[in-house]
Amino acid sequence: MKNKIKDLFNIKYPIIQGGMVWCSGWRLASAVTNSGGLGLIGSGSMKPEVLIHHIRQCRENTNLNFGVNIPLLFPYASEHIDIVIKEKVPIVFTSAGNPSIWTEKLKKNNIKVVHVVSNLQYALKAIEAGVDAIVCEGFEAGGHNGRDETTTFCLVPLVRKHVQIPLIAAGGISSGKSMLAAMVLGADAVQIGSRFVVSKESSAHINFKNKILSLKDGDTVLTLKELTPVRMIKNDFFSKVQKAYEDKYSVHQLKLLLGKGRAKKGMFNGNLIEGELEIGQVASLLDSIDSAAEIINKIISEFNFEKSRVDNI
Amino acid sequence: MKNKIKDLFNIKYPIIQGGMVWCSGWRLASAVTNSGGLGLIGSGSMKPEVLIHHIRQCRENTNLNFGVNIPLLFPYASEHIDIVIKEKVPIVFTSAGNPSIWTEKLKKNNIKVVHVVSNLQYALKAIEAGVDAIVCEGFEAGGHNGRDETTTFCLVPLVRKHVQIPLIAAGGISSGKSMLAAMVLGADAVQIGSRFVVSKESSAHINFKNKILSLKDGDTVLTLKELTPVRMIKNDFFSKVQKAYEDKYSVHQLKLLLGKGRAKKGMFNGNLIEGELEIGQVASLLDSIDSAAEIINKIISEFNFEKSRVDNI
Repeated sequence: MKNKIKDLFNIKYPIIQGGMVWCSGWRLASAVTNSGGLGLIGSGSMKPEVLIHHIRQCRENTNLNFGVNIPLLFPYASEHIDIVIKEKVPIVFTSAGNPSIWTEKLKKNNIKVVHVVSNLQYALKAIEAGVDAIVCEGFEAGGHNGRDETTTFCLVPLVRKHVQIPLIAAGGISSGKSMLAAMVLGADAVQIGSRFVVSKESSAHINFKNKILSLKDGDTVLTLKELTPVRMIKNDFFSKVQKAYEDKYSVHQLKLLLGKGRAKKGMFNGNLIEGELEIGQVASLLDSIDSAAEIINKIISEFNFEKSRVDNI
Repeated sequence: MKNKIKDLFNIKYPIIQGGMVWCSGWRLASAVTNSGGLGLIGSGSMKPEVLIHHIRQCRENTNLNFGVNIPLLFPYASEHIDIVIKEKVPIVFTSAGNPSIWTEKLKKNNIKVVHVVSNLQYALKAIEAGVDAIVCEGFEAGGHNGRDETTTFCLVPLVRKHVQIPLIAAGGISSGKSMLAAMVLGADAVQIGSRFVVSKESSAHINFKNKILSLKDGDTVLTLKELTPVRMIKNDFFSKVQKAYEDKYSVHQLKLLLGKGRAKKGMFNGNLIEGELEIGQVASLLDSIDSAAEIINKIISEFNFEKSRVDNI
């Protein structure tokens, strides 16, 4: 079928693997791209030289399109922008920041630009900035997220009602069923994070992957809104955050509590007690560690099955 | 098509109108039922004699099945249970409380019982209590809600994966599009609240209805978790709640701030400043005041159109 996102990125399936700190390096991104989706290198946890390495390794492992996700509020954003231009990365997803600052520069260098938004106002601003597509990310998504708490079920149809550009849904999507539901709500494609965190090619620590597979509903929470809102697992570190709220910590004190390197400690080094473990609500539906190819094949075959079943609804 | 919920309630369309305080009396419930859905009288705002009046008026206005919603933690729950039995109401939806206390008594009196849940654990408890169906209500829903914050997009497929009984999705549903998406996720039917609050037959005050039509995404919030969590509009009363949190109010102080009759003041009397205005996130998608019949006809025709469109996704 004709599909705006497949055309935009020249990919086989309208599935984007979200760019995720400490989880999505070149191994995962190239595996997703080679399986027919669009793989993204998550640059938010990479220093400039590391990002260059991952881009070059990704290119060595696939001839197809891949992209880089750049969180605009992160310290290396400006250097990362220069790197993706120099390395001729074809697609960039920007998030967590103002799209009006970099979009024009990226587009002048023939890069397709997509911006992640959490509400209608930001979607309209991203379009004004000239992006090629938007990701509408709901409250249920893992990692850094918006403050408005609007869910995928409400956000996608609202933004679709008001905008015409290609729209990618994110948050709560892990299966062919949820992919079809998101597209019924008005999305042209889906961005999937959590399910790829537990892929074989993900660089997440095995402790973190196993922890994710054990989660029940209600085991994650969107917190630390005073800093950058983030959805993470309710572990021992979160208990400290909760205690800090009870003790009325200032923003400065919260920053000190969070400290540096907590996400790496949890997701990359596997410290489940002290680390920050970012994952989406949909974790409670995950039950196996598969390769990226297996994940995409399972999702697409379930998606096609669910499509055929719709007549009987 | 064969459908478990249509069979269970003997209704034409798998659409339930949520039982809502101050909004869904006999006028709305009978209008929904007469239009092919299942109308529910919201007994949470009714004294016993008022509930009896609404049940009898509803019966005078329809020969078809209707139901009563009883929030189990409300002061008149026990009397309301006796009333629905005595008045031979065929269907009861229970919410906000423990289903094991009343389900058996209701079922012994040939009443179909449905319980509203916000997580998998409560769904399993409701099934153990012997209910005929469950409503899975996501974080985006208006009014009283669960503490776990699990969204419709994550809750419905999770519960569907683990249970076989008829499942009604609630939270974020207002259109044929979202109805189909919920059924793709695994629901047999949908419960719709907010859209019926702005129906012609709703007893909500016109000020409240107009306020709802003006809402943008992010204009509602799930708050007062220390009492009973409730999603409401961020109005002046909510600013006071927010200030109370900043000032570290105790549960007792929060109760005093909430006081008595705030929901009535806002939703029924139309005081948009001091009242508690309960509505779902989906309000930002609503743009007209229609009759219940128009709402159901629009939803069903959009639902059928979206079904026919799925082949092209």
